[in-house]
Amino acid sequence: MRTLTEHQDAALALAAPLPPVEVGLADALGLVAAQDVVADAPLPRWDNSAMDGFAVRAADVEPASPDTPVTLRVLDDAPAGAPSSATVEPGTAIRIMTGAPLPAGADAVVPVEQTDAVFPQVTPTVRIRAGVPRAMHVRRAGEDARPGDVVVARGTLIGAPQVGAVASVGRDRLSVHRRPRVAVVATGDELVAPGEPPAHGQLPDSNSWLLAAAVREAGADPVRLGPLPDDPDALLGALARLDDDPTIDAVVTSGGVSAGAFDVVKAALAGTGVEFVAVAVQPGKPQGLGRLPAGTPLFALPGNPVSVYTSFEVFVRPALLRMRGVDVADVRRTEVVATTDDGWRSPAGRAQLMPVRFVAPDRVRRATDGGSGSHLATRLALVEGLAVVPADVDEVAAGDVLRVLRVRT
Amino acid sequence: MRTLTEHQDAALALAAPLPPVEVGLADALGLVAAQDVVADAPLPRWDNSAMDGFAVRAADVEPASPDTPVTLRVLDDAPAGAPSSATVEPGTAIRIMTGAPLPAGADAVVPVEQTDAVFPQVTPTVRIRAGVPRAMHVRRAGEDARPGDVVVARGTLIGAPQVGAVASVGRDRLSVHRRPRVAVVATGDELVAPGEPPAHGQLPDSNSWLLAAAVREAGADPVRLGPLPDDPDALLGALARLDDDPTIDAVVTSGGVSAGAFDVVKAALAGTGVEFVAVAVQPGKPQGLGRLPAGTPLFALPGNPVSVYTSFEVFVRPALLRMRGVDVADVRRTEVVATTDDGWRSPAGRAQLMPVRFVAPDRVRRATDGGSGSHLATRLALVEGLAVVPADVDEVAAGDVLRVLRVRT
Repeated sequence: MRTLTEHQDAALALAAPLPPVEVGLADALGLVAAQDVVADAPLPRWDNSAMDGFAVRAADVEPASPDTPVTLRVLDDAPAGAPSSATVEPGTAIRIMTGAPLPAGADAVVPVEQTDAVFPQVTPTVRIRAGVPRAMHVRRAGEDARPGDVVVARGTLIGAPQVGAVASVGRDRLSVHRRPRVAVVATGDELVAPGEPPAHGQLPDSNSWLLAAAVREAGADPVRLGPLPDDPDALLGALARLDDDPTIDAVVTSGGVSAGAFDVVKAALAGTGVEFVAVAVQPGKPQGLGRLPAGTPLFALPGNPVSVYTSFEVFVRPALLRMRGVDVADVRRTEVVATTDDGWRSPAGRAQLMPVRFVAPDRVRRATDGGSGSHLATRLALVEGLAVVPADVDEVAAGDVLRVLRVRT
Repeated sequence: MRTLTEHQDAALALAAPLPPVEVGLADALGLVAAQDVVADAPLPRWDNSAMDGFAVRAADVEPASPDTPVTLRVLDDAPAGAPSSATVEPGTAIRIMTGAPLPAGADAVVPVEQTDAVFPQVTPTVRIRAGVPRAMHVRRAGEDARPGDVVVARGTLIGAPQVGAVASVGRDRLSVHRRPRVAVVATGDELVAPGEPPAHGQLPDSNSWLLAAAVREAGADPVRLGPLPDDPDALLGALARLDDDPTIDAVVTSGGVSAGAFDVVKAALAGTGVEFVAVAVQPGKPQGLGRLPAGTPLFALPGNPVSVYTSFEVFVRPALLRMRGVDVADVRRTEVVATTDDGWRSPAGRAQLMPVRFVAPDRVRRATDGGSGSHLATRLALVEGLAVVPADVDEVAAGDVLRVLRVRT
């Protein structure tokens, strides 16, 4: 049997960052920079005021104090966006607003609070009640970024601060790795669409819905196909169409991979580039993995809802993050160490992925609240983490310390 | 001056969960359940097989062992989705696949591995090599959920496991709180769109882009307006149109709230339902907050990029999560305790929100790498947390332990 880690490595090996595309700022969120975003001009472009107040020559106001104010003649206004072209000569000042370029001749800014001015009133003179050293309240050109500075490095996940940083250097487009488009397919003659009344022996298809949502949570675009019957030819046809579709970057199936007489995914793909293996993990022992003929990565997961979920988490999600351009070191869920409040059995010789919820930042208990069957779909609704029980452990006791993958952030 | 906590409370008080709407499963991800989702039938609906194998009467196979196998006549096939209507009589078995309803007469399942059968071959008899107790490998009807069980509780954020759970009880729609639609407006005569060359004194509008992305990261839909000039009438007109638009749930502005002569947001809204206050926090001291005449909540943030970002994080984001229906206890960022690797000054009498990055799970240093000005837009690109320095601390030293809001998950 393949170990959990071996199969994780094999799954990740199917993935590579997708080609770069250029997108506008409005479409960059959640994607990964494919190239460095570099400042091509200093930021700020010009020395500018950090305060609302008066641009002055520091030497003029040096003796100023509340008792001995210095009076300066106000030459001009410099609101942000309408810089003054006047020059501050000895004995003069220019009214200036935060962000406005520092006028020629000025070398410091006195905040309005240290003057007798009452904005927005305009007065011909201003009394300065405190001296300021040279450069005070002046933001220097290039203080934020110099030309050539990397503002957002290749490989960075674009969040709001990164969008702001790219805009601040005057760029409205950037190069990112394309968002993966992932087809999800549930198989099984017994499946009906949710909302349709199931006949005897039928049940609603929940796996394709769970997988589509999980694909979206992993930052990729899902393409959900309706459930496919246990007919190898129909499945092969559907997979061939997906494989030939250049917009589909990966396919995830659920069901049909174990030892049954009607295991359609295994039957359809046996002898192709897809390998069916037993992985030493519970749930999720039967797994298929490989490439369809035209090269599309295929992840064939088992069909029980809990197995689908845990298999997606540990095998598929890291691969999708890698396709998005996330660094290999960052594709896994954050792992925390937690003490369990309850105990359970774990199969000897297989690692176990136990859905848990957090009762404290470092304490968990089973999300499934007693039941541990991989068919317990509704119990998954409480999952916040997956406790990883090592293969050589066959019993977990209350008080044991476990590694837990945090799946709900 | 208002404390940080007081202003946080005032901002959150503007928000209430938006009205419920019914959405299809494909649109539920990231929204919050407005009503309990309740199972209306047992799940599983029927006793069914947990294994691929043979449905038997346990009493028949009780004496079976590898040396003394029991031979049963195979009556029928029961693949999932096509249940057998035959009855297992003494001395007989029905071939059954995982998930298929247990046929009448049977009370246990023998896995194929404990027989001489080789799926998918069909044989008239099967040799059973091991006994199984009654109920073995049988999933009981209602084991996952009983009618009336709450599958997803009101107030739950819908993630992939919840989508799966709702589908598994046969529902294709659910009631969720509507996703907020939030207008973001940057003000300032000096602003040009990113991508347009700035004239002397102009700079690219990065705030509206940062805010739009932050709104989306907070699970709401942004409506980004181009930068507005420092003209109170134009601003009032734009705000009135947003206030009258029933699809707009909140408005966030940046800039124009401090003491300058051209502070347009303050000038336009002074004396209305929007209050302009000084908050004892750095950055982000000048803040506006209130309701536009028709009742739309307005968050008027200062204009420096770092102030915009930190103000959004602590004042606006919790309110948007509350509008989505998130419990008040969960609207704040997760707080961790971390030791800082570097030190800096903090203003006396004001709390400080310092952008930091994590160098280890419990160690941070300043994201701005030395610079601490609230205009350092590009340095924000490294932010992973906001260290909260209390108001009574005026200096942070390397080795100090700080509360850190984790902003990048």
